[in-house]
This record gives sequence, structure tokens and C-alpha cells, in this order.
Amino acid sequence: MLSPVFIRNLKACLGEENVLLDPEDLICYSFDAASGIPPRKPGAVAIPRSREQVSEILRVCSRHGVPVYPRGSGTNLTGGTVPSPDGIVLSMVELSQILDIDAENLTATAEPGVVIDKLNKAVAQFGLMYPPDPGTVATCTLGGSVAECSGGLRGLKYGVTRDYVMGLEVVVADGSIIRVGGKTVKNVSGYDLTRLFVGSEGTLGIFTQITVRLVPAPQARRSMLAVFDSVDKAGQTVADIIIHRVVPATLEIMDDITIRSVEAYTPVGLPVGAAAVLFIEVDGYPEVVEREAGIVRDICQTHQAQEVRVAKDEVERDRLWEARRVALPALARVKPTTILEDATVPRSKIPNMLSAIKEVARKYSLTIGTFGHAGDGNLHPTILTDASNTEEMTRVKAAIEEIFQTALSLGGTLSGEHGIGIAKAEFMEWEFGPAGLDLMQRVKKAFDPQNILNPGKVVRRAGD
Amino acid sequence: MLSPVFIRNLKACLGEENVLLDPEDLICYSFDAASGIPPRKPGAVAIPRSREQVSEILRVCSRHGVPVYPRGSGTNLTGGTVPSPDGIVLSMVELSQILDIDAENLTATAEPGVVIDKLNKAVAQFGLMYPPDPGTVATCTLGGSVAECSGGLRGLKYGVTRDYVMGLEVVVADGSIIRVGGKTVKNVSGYDLTRLFVGSEGTLGIFTQITVRLVPAPQARRSMLAVFDSVDKAGQTVADIIIHRVVPATLEIMDDITIRSVEAYTPVGLPVGAAAVLFIEVDGYPEVVEREAGIVRDICQTHQAQEVRVAKDEVERDRLWEARRVALPALARVKPTTILEDATVPRSKIPNMLSAIKEVARKYSLTIGTFGHAGDGNLHPTILTDASNTEEMTRVKAAIEEIFQTALSLGGTLSGEHGIGIAKAEFMEWEFGPAGLDLMQRVKKAFDPQNILNPGKVVRRAGD
Repeated sequence: MLSPVFIRNLKACLGEENVLLDPEDLICYSFDAASGIPPRKPGAVAIPRSREQVSEILRVCSRHGVPVYPRGSGTNLTGGTVPSPDGIVLSMVELSQILDIDAENLTATAEPGVVIDKLNKAVAQFGLMYPPDPGTVATCTLGGSVAECSGGLRGLKYGVTRDYVMGLEVVVADGSIIRVGGKTVKNVSGYDLTRLFVGSEGTLGIFTQITVRLVPAPQARRSMLAVFDSVDKAGQTVADIIIHRVVPATLEIMDDITIRSVEAYTPVGLPVGAAAVLFIEVDGYPEVVEREAGIVRDICQTHQAQEVRVAKDEVERDRLWEARRVALPALARVKPTTILEDATVPRSKIPNMLSAIKEVARKYSLTIGTFGHAGDGNLHPTILTDASNTEEMTRVKAAIEEIFQTALSLGGTLSGEHGIGIAKAEFMEWEFGPAGLDLMQRVKKAFDPQNILNPGKVVRRAGD
Repeated sequence: MLSPVFIRNLKACLGEENVLLDPEDLICYSFDAASGIPPRKPGAVAIPRSREQVSEILRVCSRHGVPVYPRGSGTNLTGGTVPSPDGIVLSMVELSQILDIDAENLTATAEPGVVIDKLNKAVAQFGLMYPPDPGTVATCTLGGSVAECSGGLRGLKYGVTRDYVMGLEVVVADGSIIRVGGKTVKNVSGYDLTRLFVGSEGTLGIFTQITVRLVPAPQARRSMLAVFDSVDKAGQTVADIIIHRVVPATLEIMDDITIRSVEAYTPVGLPVGAAAVLFIEVDGYPEVVEREAGIVRDICQTHQAQEVRVAKDEVERDRLWEARRVALPALARVKPTTILEDATVPRSKIPNMLSAIKEVARKYSLTIGTFGHAGDGNLHPTILTDASNTEEMTRVKAAIEEIFQTALSLGGTLSGEHGIGIAKAEFMEWEFGPAGLDLMQRVKKAFDPQNILNPGKVVRRAGD
């Protein structure tokens, strides 16, 4: 669907070898990780190797009115990277240099294609840490995680991606290169476009450099597993830990269905008869870790934990967290189709949300395993289903809508960390009302008057 | 300049008694705290008492095309609250309820007119703290501090206002009421309008409710004063503290001119012969405070501090910080006119910036006292001058421009915490270039097509 003139211009920007057109190649760029959005092949894939090339590509695309679908590792979960045949995928993976680790200012500057794990290993040599910790940390790119404002396992204590992005170099729709933010902790110069770009899912601009804030790596950490015979007791434990002014680095929950799936997938000794488990890690100075671990253990026992297992060493710790990290693949094995949701509520509403999810599963006769970030109210109800079963998929759709509405009615949000993408765009008005949604559409139009930057994601416009 | 019909409509929204028109009243709303921007009386002052009244006022103003200048306590420093005779001041001080302190979710929700000190006293009863700590904490309103994205003394460890605002209820230009963000730690639903509103200086919308994040109050703290015979040694001490992975809650610097002015204003025993002093406070668990205070003291001594004075008790601590907090009034006494600047650089560039400021003072034969937040790179060079001396004011203007250009060339920003307002609007292109500035202007237009929300601030538009 792309014109030969456009393709010629694109090749002129990048060189022939950096423009993919073969159908086999295009298939590889047609989907995301697990949104269930049907794949759509792009018209071409462009692989820039410099900011100037990104700028050139956007100039060409805006001249031809061709949509641009930016893509890192494609690990997103709401269709953010799903392209269309009348547009190009802009693969950012070759812009993958770590440009600067500034131990004095506690910052790192990198290109968007850097994998987060690689960044973390590089800064660890300076005793530093980049806290955002999405589940796909070993494969996802920094650029993708900034575009999605990834959350992850450390949200409660350390916050999410937006709390760490300090500055951006961005190519905007017409190909101009702008810089916003920088290396200063304080910056109130003009509108905060830096945070507006964070989480904009590739719809407002393309990042070519990202400056992030680092923190001193904690000197010690201790992990534990607490086992409960009711979800309520686990939920109360979470609330009580916070009330006791302990803020764990990580505070995760897993329900019975997830526990059994994980144990069947990779036997690590999870208690298959339990109703819920909490995974908890405290970190900091050794003496603080000691103190906080004691408080947490006491609170678990107060709420009648059947068992509190404290990891004795790093090996036991890693095994514990491995069990948590395989939750999604373990659940995905159970049925042909896995739909991972992102219901997020204020932390105190976790027990309400958990029982609402159980109720939805009963009502629509569905299997839903739930795990997630109890400490920050971000749950992942995971619907195990079969996309080929049309009748069941109708029930799935109704169940998802009911889960969203429950989250919103509990003071929560449509998405805690997976974004809106295509999957949730139709529900935006539930959260923001017509006036709020209109404002977001006007923001999109201000940045991208031609609607060529990842169109159809976040806010829809006529014709998407 | 306001039409009788408009005034009648305004009174119909609010009741006669909440619309001020007397010249003596209007004078009180004609200026800000210390920008040096000449006062301008508004056409009227409106004092709403509910979100519905704010909405009604904006409907009337947008119908008549009348500018709205929102105002809290008016403590801002770049002309943000300076109105014009063809518009009205919207005084938000009567919307001053704390609506909710949610100890379980670590949030507070309040109306914009709440004074920050009052909020802090209220949350302290729950063992919690609202960390943003602008110098005017005892008088400034929450709404004003969110509109300006205030920084303050705790930026290094705790961040600034934007790091604590979780949700907003906002009345936008046409009078619609929207809600963005909320009580969840994680939220990636749509564009991050919450952070875009933070620091927008009243130019994008009017806040009617603000939800902020709280943190557990530290259990212990220790303050110290370190005295140096050279600014460089003080600067190296700052850098070295961070390199040793200690992140103090507060890390402030004061130069010789400021030390002498403070001691003359309120004798607290500052060393008047010193070239620079550092005020340092560490906080947290008692055992951490002990450890970090020791590290800091050792580093000060390594860099040949002439003296390190550790506050023995809360009385000594308060006296120490009082000396820091009176820096501005103490300097303001020296000459008829005080111009407080806001040069902000990456922390490691503090020594460079300090010597550049001294050089600028010499070059333009001006008296400049410098103090500020060394830990986060945010310095306040304070020019002591006389507005009636036209010749000197020409040199002042040149000096300010040179200070801005030096900050930008060192990787800094036009404003760390005072905002752009009127005072720095003309310099925006230096930082963002034409493309960046154009984007900000388009954002303004998307939110406020008629240009009635605090016009002439942050980004200028034709006719401002």
C-alpha cells in the first residue's frame, strides 16, 4: 500500500539494507507480546542508526502522510506496536548505545534501543541502580519502557518509569529534533513535556536519547514468602505493612490458580493448597533491612500466615523471585489464549478487587488467575481462554469490561502499567469523560496534526 | 476595562460580596512576591467558594473573552500572579479544606487554598509527611505550589512537587470539570495530563482538588553546619558526599556575602569570615542517621572544613535552619531592590556556576549574594540593587542574561523552581529552540484556544 516513490525516498534516507520489505520480515513486526490484538503487517520496516536518520524518516513520512509505528522489543501488552499496511514500523533497536553514566549527578543517558538489563548491569559497576523493573526487563528496551511508562515489581517503594526520566531528545512529527528536561533534579522551565512524552506510547514523538535518574543500589535485601489460607488475610497483611510505615521494595501477591500453574510449570516448592501467597522484599542498609524484615514477619504472623519462609541466601532469593516472574508464562500454558489484564486500584482496595475478580470469573464461567503488585494496587487478572471459541470470547469481553468498571468504581484506573494502546482506547471515556478525552485528543493534534505517529493508539481520531 | 455586563454576570455566579472592585482591594492583588515585575491592577477579583463557582466563572470569562489570573498566596517569584486590567484575579484561598487523609494509601486530598504548613501539620498526626518544602511553606498554598511545581530544601532526596502530585480535579478554559490521575501509585491511562498541569503556572487550567502522595515521616534527623575557607572546597564536599552514596535530605550552600548579611540581620553565630558554609541534614531510621552523619562529617573534614558543627538538639537544629531560611530577607535588607535568580545546573557543575556568578558580579560591578540548594544544583544568585538607578539596572539585566546563558551552557536550565512567568518568557527559545517553543505554544493553544488562562506567562502568544 506504500507508493514506490515513498519507498525510494525511505531507502534514500537509510540505505537499501535498512528498509525491510519481504513478507517474512514484515510478519515479525506485525504484533505485540500478548494483547490479543490481531497482527497486521506494516508496509515496510525502517531501521535507523542515528537521530538524523530518524529525523529524515519523519520528514519523508510527514511529506507523504505515511503513519510511523515505533517499536523497541515489542514486549508491550495493549497493541501499542501493532502497525498497519499503509504505514512503516520504525525499529529503534539499532540505536542502542549507553552514552554516559554520570556517577556524580546520578544520571545515565542512553539511546532508546538499550535493553534495560544492560543498562542496569552497566550502572551496577558504579554501585547504582535504575529502579524501574518491568517483568520483561531482560528483553524490553529503554525507549519502549519510557513510551509505555513501564511499572513493574518495585513501584511501591521506588515508583515507576516517569519518576526516573529526567530528559529526552525527541524527534517530533515534522522531523524537528527537540530537547526537553536534562540532568538537573529541579527543572520547571516551560511545560513539562518530558513527563508528557513518558507514557505517550509513541503517539507524540520518537525518542532518540533518554536521560534517567539513578539511585544508590541498596546494600542489603531480604526476601520472604508468606502463605495464607484466605485472600482476605493476605490483603489485610498488605494494608497492615503500610500502616506500620514499612515500605517494602517489592510486595507481590499470587492467587490459588496462579500458584498451582506456577508449581506445575516449574516446581519451586510453592504451597499448592494455599489461597494466596505474598512475595515480599525489603532493601536498604543492613540494619534497616533487619528491622523491617522483622516487622513484616510479625505482621504476617498476626494475620495468621500459615508459613513465613525467609530466603536464607541469594540462591533461595532468586528461586523465590523466579517463581513470581514465571507467573505469566505458567498461566499461558494452561489454555490456548491468555489475556493479561491490568486492573489497578488504590492499595487499600486490593481485597475488594480480588473478590470482585473471583465473582466475575464465577459469573461468566471463566478461569481467571490473578497475580500482581499488591503493594501498589496493580493486579493482573489473567483470563485463560481460547480465541477460537467465539461464544466464550463474548463472555471474556463482558468480563473484561466488568473488571474495568469495578476498578474505576473503586477509585482505580483503566491501566496501571500496560497502557491503553488499541486494546483499551474504546474505554477511555469511562475514565475521563467527554471533556477529559477531548483534551487528550487536542494534545494529540497539537503534537501530530497529520495523525502519523502511531495512529489509533491511546486516543482515537476520526478515520483511525 | 471590564464591561458592566461582565461584572453583572460575575456577581451572579458568586454573589456581590465575593467580587472585589474597590481600587484599594485591587492593589492588593496587583503583584507577586519578588519578581520585580511592575504591579498591574486587575479589573476585578473573584473569590469562589466551590468548584461549581470556579466552573461558572470560567464559563462567563470564556463567553466574554476575559482573562483569568489565578492566585493563591501570591508568593511566586517570576510574575506568575501579576494580572492585567482587562482581566480578573481568581483568588483560590477560600477553597481551603483538607478533604481526606488516607493513611492506608499514603495520600491526602485537599483544595488548592490549603497552606502547605497546615497540610503538613495535619498529616504529621498520622506519622506522615508531605515532602515538598518551598521556602514559603508557612504561607504558600498547595494550589500555587502545584501550579509552580515548587521545589525547596528537600529536592535532593525527596524530589519536588511533581513527584508527589497523584491526581487533580481541574476546571479547564471552557468551564468543564475534568479529573486526571488518582490515588493509584501506577497510572498510565492516557496522556499524563496530571504532570502537564503541574508547573503550568495557571495557564492550562484551574485546580479545584489536589491528591498528593505522602511518605512516612523520618524517625530521626541530624543537622550540621560545615565551614569552608573556599567555595571550591565546599563544592567538592557536595560532590564527594553524593559519590559516597549518601543522599542527605537537605544540602544547602551559602556564600560569604550571604553569611555576613544573615549574621547582621539575625545573629545566630555564623562564621562571618568564612568563604562558604554548607547546611546539611540527614534523616531516616536512627541507625542510618548515625551512620550517614558520620560519613558526611568525615567528608567535610577530608575537604578541610574549618569547623563542622553538629546540632545537639532540636533547638540548635531549628536555629541552624532559621539562619538558612532568613537568607533572602537578610539580603533584601542590604539594598532597596532585590532580584532573586534561579540558576540551576547539574550538581557537579556547582563549583563552575558559583565562580561564574562571582565573575559576573565583578564584570558588571554588582553585589550578588548566592545561596541555595547545592545538593540539587539549584542556586539563588541574589542581585542587590536599586530599581531607581537606571544605569545600574542596565548592568543588572546584562548580568541576569549572562547568568542564564552560563547555566544553560553548563547543561542547566532557565529555572529550577521559580518558574518562567513573565520574567523569563523572553528567554525560553534559548533553552528549547524554535521547534520546542512552538510545541509548547501549541500545547497552550490546545488547552486554551482563546488565551484567557493567565495570558502572557510561560509561553507568549501574539498580543500578550
